Amino acid sequence: MPIQSEVIPQISRQNKLNRILSAVGLDGMLLNPGPSLVYLTGLHFHLSERPVTVLFQPGLKPIIVLPELELEKLKQLPFEFQAFPYGEDPSNWANVFHAAALSAELAGKRVGVEPRQLRFLEYQLLSQAAPGAEYIAAEESLATMRMYKDEGELSAMRRAVEIAQNALETTLAQVKLGMTELDLASELTLQLFRAGCDPEVPFSPIVSGGLNSANPHATPSSRQLKRDDLLVIDWGASHQGYFSDITRTFAIGRMDPEFEKISRIVLEANEAGRNAARPGIPMEVVDQASRKVIESAGYGQYFTHRTGHGLGMEAHEMPYIRAGNQQPLEPGMTFTIEPGIYLPSRNGVRIEDDVVITSSGIECLTSLPREVKPLM
Amino acid sequence: MPIQSEVIPQISRQNKLNRILSAVGLDGMLLNPGPSLVYLTGLHFHLSERPVTVLFQPGLKPIIVLPELELEKLKQLPFEFQAFPYGEDPSNWANVFHAAALSAELAGKRVGVEPRQLRFLEYQLLSQAAPGAEYIAAEESLATMRMYKDEGELSAMRRAVEIAQNALETTLAQVKLGMTELDLASELTLQLFRAGCDPEVPFSPIVSGGLNSANPHATPSSRQLKRDDLLVIDWGASHQGYFSDITRTFAIGRMDPEFEKISRIVLEANEAGRNAARPGIPMEVVDQASRKVIESAGYGQYFTHRTGHGLGMEAHEMPYIRAGNQQPLEPGMTFTIEPGIYLPSRNGVRIEDDVVITSSGIECLTSLPREVKPLM
Repeated sequence: MPIQSEVIPQISRQNKLNRILSAVGLDGMLLNPGPSLVYLTGLHFHLSERPVTVLFQPGLKPIIVLPELELEKLKQLPFEFQAFPYGEDPSNWANVFHAAALSAELAGKRVGVEPRQLRFLEYQLLSQAAPGAEYIAAEESLATMRMYKDEGELSAMRRAVEIAQNALETTLAQVKLGMTELDLASELTLQLFRAGCDPEVPFSPIVSGGLNSANPHATPSSRQLKRDDLLVIDWGASHQGYFSDITRTFAIGRMDPEFEKISRIVLEANEAGRNAARPGIPMEVVDQASRKVIESAGYGQYFTHRTGHGLGMEAHEMPYIRAGNQQPLEPGMTFTIEPGIYLPSRNGVRIEDDVVITSSGIECLTSLPREVKPLM
Repeated sequence: MPIQSEVIPQISRQNKLNRILSAVGLDGMLLNPGPSLVYLTGLHFHLSERPVTVLFQPGLKPIIVLPELELEKLKQLPFEFQAFPYGEDPSNWANVFHAAALSAELAGKRVGVEPRQLRFLEYQLLSQAAPGAEYIAAEESLATMRMYKDEGELSAMRRAVEIAQNALETTLAQVKLGMTELDLASELTLQLFRAGCDPEVPFSPIVSGGLNSANPHATPSSRQLKRDDLLVIDWGASHQGYFSDITRTFAIGRMDPEFEKISRIVLEANEAGRNAARPGIPMEVVDQASRKVIESAGYGQYFTHRTGHGLGMEAHEMPYIRAGNQQPLEPGMTFTIEPGIYLPSRNGVRIEDDVVITSSGIECLTSLPREVKPLM
């Protein structure tokens, strides 16, 4: 029998992680449940009040600390591991983490962590069990692996875009004056599931009308849609754990002349970003291309965020398309291009597409019309 | 003008927190976005790659560190605060946290944190900015406040139960042999939104058939429903930020005699738990009441989890209904009663209800039939 291990994605990904850890001088990587753990192991856990961690170390079996009632999930793992399960009494947690830390021989070791994913709960339990270890922010070790999508991952993302676009089209047909942002967000979420979205949306849709649209990260409210509002919808779907993330802006009735102009500027900025993106150029060049259009038109101070962010198993991941990021774009990288202009207490406009870098340029995954047009 | 502050819920809750912090010897409380922050401020943020924290200290204005692009959200706050915003370049984060820590005069202070909610990201930024402060797990300070639901909160929970029950009934009418667990979970989620669920479900429904039902925390898979499977559905709805969490078990066709017996035992254990719950008794007594039924029937080793958990703005919160928890039940506490029996590699049965402690006993919020019966 030939050795099969490298053809099992979890094993080849763990091997790649171990090579990266050795290269950056880390002795291990401590993960909470989340996308990186799914990527490396296939293991899905809800983050609950019960601590769960997996520790990867080159040359050693992964160490898994988890509640006994989750042990069943480990039966299908295609790799060897050491499990440290605990029962329902939280006073046992410290002992189990102590046993895991002993087995991992953590004293004096440098352990990478994902700062956005690791909770104080697990960090404190392990660092108290192994006070001699050092915990170091090292999300890039995993983020750089996950940044390059393979063809299977891209297929899932194309389908996530298709699901999101279909769901929006069905939803738009139902927009009426007087609907609240919450009504519309619920309808869109419902249509996402009907269109085939995974059971969990990648993020709750942002539906913001009128002056709420001037807040790029608004939460849907009970504000009703009014005539002459602008309406910003920022939504996405999930397919097999991979995400889309799209924004379109619509007019409810007339647009005032300034926002007609602003809408054309944002569209042009979106096009400039898509035209600039190709392999080999620094990421900040895409940001500059979009931003220059908005700055030249005199609205630079109202484009308050970066031009885009990576997209994949998370709604925001590496690479980040922002000023100062000189890392070159490379084939397989997937990210958003989403310039916007937000006039406080008035309205906002954002147009967001999802792209992947190809060998010669980009493939734009999103295809819905981008122009800001009256819905009714 | 009379002083209005205590009638604004955010202000009266912050004042109560400050009294609790003083009583337990803490100088402040550091929060990440999440339910406790919503409870205290009304502020909703997505947890993203951008750090966000709020620090509460008795006698001082809350300190808010956040991205500039979220500043708009602060305009509607009904209380005074100090904001420390930062722009799009992550290299500024350390400076902004340093300024916040200086303003908070954190050196030497004891700061409470929520270990399940606080991320390593914000913890590390603040602890590096204020190395002289001590960070202490103190989730109970907030959890104990949030544990007692007022009438407004209970109304929201009753509606969340009603939405979940309606959604399940519509979904059950569509169950067919050959459907996958994922199909059924998507359909249920869709029906939750149609029934009026908030745009974000409290947790992805668990839909587990046959041997997957033997895993209490299974993730829906592409396994198809087969004749003679048991089918466990564990789902909930969200209404105005408050949750329901229910489980019912169904038979797809015949049940073998052992699982007919097991289903009757679990139902009896559920009833015993509901009958035991009332104000003044220790929480563990409810767990004992349910567990005794299952142990007496010889299945104790297959009831692998506690009998219940608190429910409210989180799917799992205080109080926990488990062995060893001697805290007395009090009016306003809301929790689940959810005994189960899981035979590995065969099937599982769980029956979960949501209850609130009243002045004399319980009000059971859930009303769907509990018996395990054939669906087809």
